[in-house]
Amino acid sequence: MLSPMQSASPTPLQSFNRIVVFGVGLIGGSFALALKQANAVKQVIGVGRRAETLQRAQSLGIIDEIGDATSVSGADLVLIAAPVAQTEALLRELAPHLQFGTVVTDAGSTKGDVVQAARAALGDKIAQFVPGHPIAGREQNGPEAALPELYRGKKVVLTALPENSSYSISTVASAWQHCGAQIHHLGADEHDAVFAAVSHLPHLLAYALVDDIAARDNADLLFQYAASGFRDFTRIAGSSPEMWRDISLANRAALLAELDAYTAQLSTLRAMLVASDGAALEHVYARAQSARQAWIAAIEAAEQARTYQQGGD
Amino acid sequence: MLSPMQSASPTPLQSFNRIVVFGVGLIGGSFALALKQANAVKQVIGVGRRAETLQRAQSLGIIDEIGDATSVSGADLVLIAAPVAQTEALLRELAPHLQFGTVVTDAGSTKGDVVQAARAALGDKIAQFVPGHPIAGREQNGPEAALPELYRGKKVVLTALPENSSYSISTVASAWQHCGAQIHHLGADEHDAVFAAVSHLPHLLAYALVDDIAARDNADLLFQYAASGFRDFTRIAGSSPEMWRDISLANRAALLAELDAYTAQLSTLRAMLVASDGAALEHVYARAQSARQAWIAAIEAAEQARTYQQGGD
Repeated sequence: MLSPMQSASPTPLQSFNRIVVFGVGLIGGSFALALKQANAVKQVIGVGRRAETLQRAQSLGIIDEIGDATSVSGADLVLIAAPVAQTEALLRELAPHLQFGTVVTDAGSTKGDVVQAARAALGDKIAQFVPGHPIAGREQNGPEAALPELYRGKKVVLTALPENSSYSISTVASAWQHCGAQIHHLGADEHDAVFAAVSHLPHLLAYALVDDIAARDNADLLFQYAASGFRDFTRIAGSSPEMWRDISLANRAALLAELDAYTAQLSTLRAMLVASDGAALEHVYARAQSARQAWIAAIEAAEQARTYQQGGD
Repeated sequence: MLSPMQSASPTPLQSFNRIVVFGVGLIGGSFALALKQANAVKQVIGVGRRAETLQRAQSLGIIDEIGDATSVSGADLVLIAAPVAQTEALLRELAPHLQFGTVVTDAGSTKGDVVQAARAALGDKIAQFVPGHPIAGREQNGPEAALPELYRGKKVVLTALPENSSYSISTVASAWQHCGAQIHHLGADEHDAVFAAVSHLPHLLAYALVDDIAARDNADLLFQYAASGFRDFTRIAGSSPEMWRDISLANRAALLAELDAYTAQLSTLRAMLVASDGAALEHVYARAQSARQAWIAAIEAAEQARTYQQGGD
């Protein structure tokens, strides 16, 4: 059972008796480790497709027990941290075992499709599902990559449903706050439009550039002269193709809208180049440089404020 | 005068009595510092538009004296490290003072336009000009950003002219080798095509994305959720707008060709998205991921080999 919310200020975070995590890799594993480090959970049960991965997670102290869909019975909180394409099937499996007091959330990078899957799979129990998206990651994957500090200072976006009770929402928020994350709230459509622009499109653009170059007859020569700018620009093209295939399809409409806006922007720049219009090009480049500098300055100010709050130096 | 080439193996590098550097910021300043640290030059004279910058370079020990275009008279080597758009005017200024024994090179990011400018400015003395492009940089600029190790292990591309003597070419190569750089040779057109693909296009794409987002009504919201992937992808959009305007115009034809190839690649990906063709998207993403992984592995192997040669750990 969950500890009750208290009205004292600051509101104490809820703590948990049993949490079930579907998918014990980087995202689910880091969540479990952080809650354990915060002494916010008594027992973590791991569920997954591969017994070997679950055993590694158990030997690493990420999970206490290996379970299955029936383990959600009697749990306080369930996190789905599997690839988004599996969300609906997993929710269908666990739905029959989902009791009234259990809250379910997920960690998917897209939210519109997850909400649709959850409504289809959970039916009447949809009020117990609070969709979420932690904005954190590493290049490594699997239980060995999990870190208790992965979410510290990072954002977690909740896209709460009209059916969710404030109790369910604060249950999920509490868990992420124990991990050190900041809670943000967006609508699912708004979330998907935002991440199409600042994450999903850049991934597609980076994959497109590397593949464009790799397909050339002189690819070896080209890569030989690619330097640190190219390395940073294409870092995200090192991400998992399966994961980004799923995200691209799950957020197809918003991604297409962003791709079209970007292609229009490239046409504008192309026309400036054709006209040798240096002033117009410089104007765009300068506006981009100053927007990026302002953004970096804001990030650094937020990091400093957080360090100060934590009593660091 | 230059030390003569010797036939002993390994060939000793030439050393220099007097070098003149036009532009004493990051690129020219690092060149001067590296040659001094290698004891490869007796005197470095700095030339530039702003007296204050030259004085700072002198007080930092980058240059020994402040000079002007007449200082090239009697110099062994001249490096033009000013913005590419100034190359022709600088070469016209120094041409009357250029004696037979002096070799001139540059550090411009584009080469076709520099060769054209050099032919126009130097006329009969064109054989003394060996075009060059050091592939190194930092985000900071100015004399304070100069580092003697900036070029260590980096590539310098020379795009030698048919008129250049092997002596002139080896003079320029020697200077960069003293800086720890590896010498590569390409034709000027080949150089410009390669760097349009792996450097100039990525810069344009990064500027275009940041500007596209910055121009939106909800730009603040979008930037708020931009994370480390976006940060790396757009790092090069923090570069100097003036410099990249000049490079875009100087290498316009090759950049337009690359932009068109990239736009065609985006159309292909768009069609896959419209058709919800996950297998085709994953194929492109996977090809890009594996090409990038192979490239990174090759860079790391080269770095290890270099560390081993230098007797490091």
